[in-house]
Amino acid sequence: MINYPNKKQTFKKKTENHSNRGMSFENMINETNEFYLSNDIAIIHKKPIPIQIVKVDYPSRSGAVIKEAYYKVPSTTDYNGIYKGKHLDFEAKETINKTSFPLSNIHSHQIDHLISIENHGGISFVLIFFKVHDEIYLLETKYLKDFVKRSISGRKSITYDEIKEYGYIVKEGYAPRIEYLKVVDKIIKKG
Amino acid sequence: MINYPNKKQTFKKKTENHSNRGMSFENMINETNEFYLSNDIAIIHKKPIPIQIVKVDYPSRSGAVIKEAYYKVPSTTDYNGIYKGKHLDFEAKETINKTSFPLSNIHSHQIDHLISIENHGGISFVLIFFKVHDEIYLLETKYLKDFVKRSISGRKSITYDEIKEYGYIVKEGYAPRIEYLKVVDKIIKKG
Repeated sequence: MINYPNKKQTFKKKTENHSNRGMSFENMINETNEFYLSNDIAIIHKKPIPIQIVKVDYPSRSGAVIKEAYYKVPSTTDYNGIYKGKHLDFEAKETINKTSFPLSNIHSHQIDHLISIENHGGISFVLIFFKVHDEIYLLETKYLKDFVKRSISGRKSITYDEIKEYGYIVKEGYAPRIEYLKVVDKIIKKG
Repeated sequence: MINYPNKKQTFKKKTENHSNRGMSFENMINETNEFYLSNDIAIIHKKPIPIQIVKVDYPSRSGAVIKEAYYKVPSTTDYNGIYKGKHLDFEAKETINKTSFPLSNIHSHQIDHLISIENHGGISFVLIFFKVHDEIYLLETKYLKDFVKRSISGRKSITYDEIKEYGYIVKEGYAPRIEYLKVVDKIIKKG
């Protein structure tokens, strides 16, 4: 029932294989964030999925069992936290497309949220995982915003080439699994 | 099923009665955060309750129904976000005690989390609602930390008088419902 990871434990990985095959993008990010947390580099958590709970049973003293619940539409992004005193906020998406990232993958209120965070002085972005290329890109909200604007009358996706041009490639490694804070360092440096 | 509030709507309250009777502390904070959000003052959200989902049914195309799930222990605080470029993180607790706030009300990993946020340059605190007094206090983590330290060998609670001395009273009003960001302004000013 309780699934609370021991945060103080040293980061361990079973294999030395850096390939992403077999590990979900979400798990890659979670492992990365656990590494950052246990090494006191950054405090970034995935938000729980919002659930509308309708019915709860109490079969014993040991705990409640939720018997009826529904998924709600998230009003924010999946990840947020603090790094070097900065508020960080991002959404992570994967695609099996080779040549483009469809904007329909991100809810419009998530885009609004990312823009708001940027306006309030935070660092916000999307992490996009191109499964076929086995490549992860970080695209800042300021560019995402422009592509969303274009999509109103133009193409509804960002091409792979555009992401290569405007985004940063995120290196994959052993620990951390994906080094997205190295890219955030560049963004902070730019100011 | 979907319970996504219309964020752009103007803040509305049914009555002019400022008394907290009849409204949960959580709802007071949520109303406050909606006000801050819709007026573009701050972006602060309550995190969903973490749930371990075990069984999901798909009775129709319209949506999934969660049929078995369990509450997990939260590893962080309930609220976080951004205000004036600062990362904000806090936990909200209410007590029916008159003379003290029992520290057992806050999970130890939540205290660790608040301390970490402070160490990383964020603003973190607890909001404590004394129901009997109908008073809300904001206590910064740096003081909470000392009381937690004391509790190892000494008293396991913070007295009402101590909270009055070390905390800030949070004014209650119409919109926003509880003006905790005014206190955060003071904390920012102090540096």
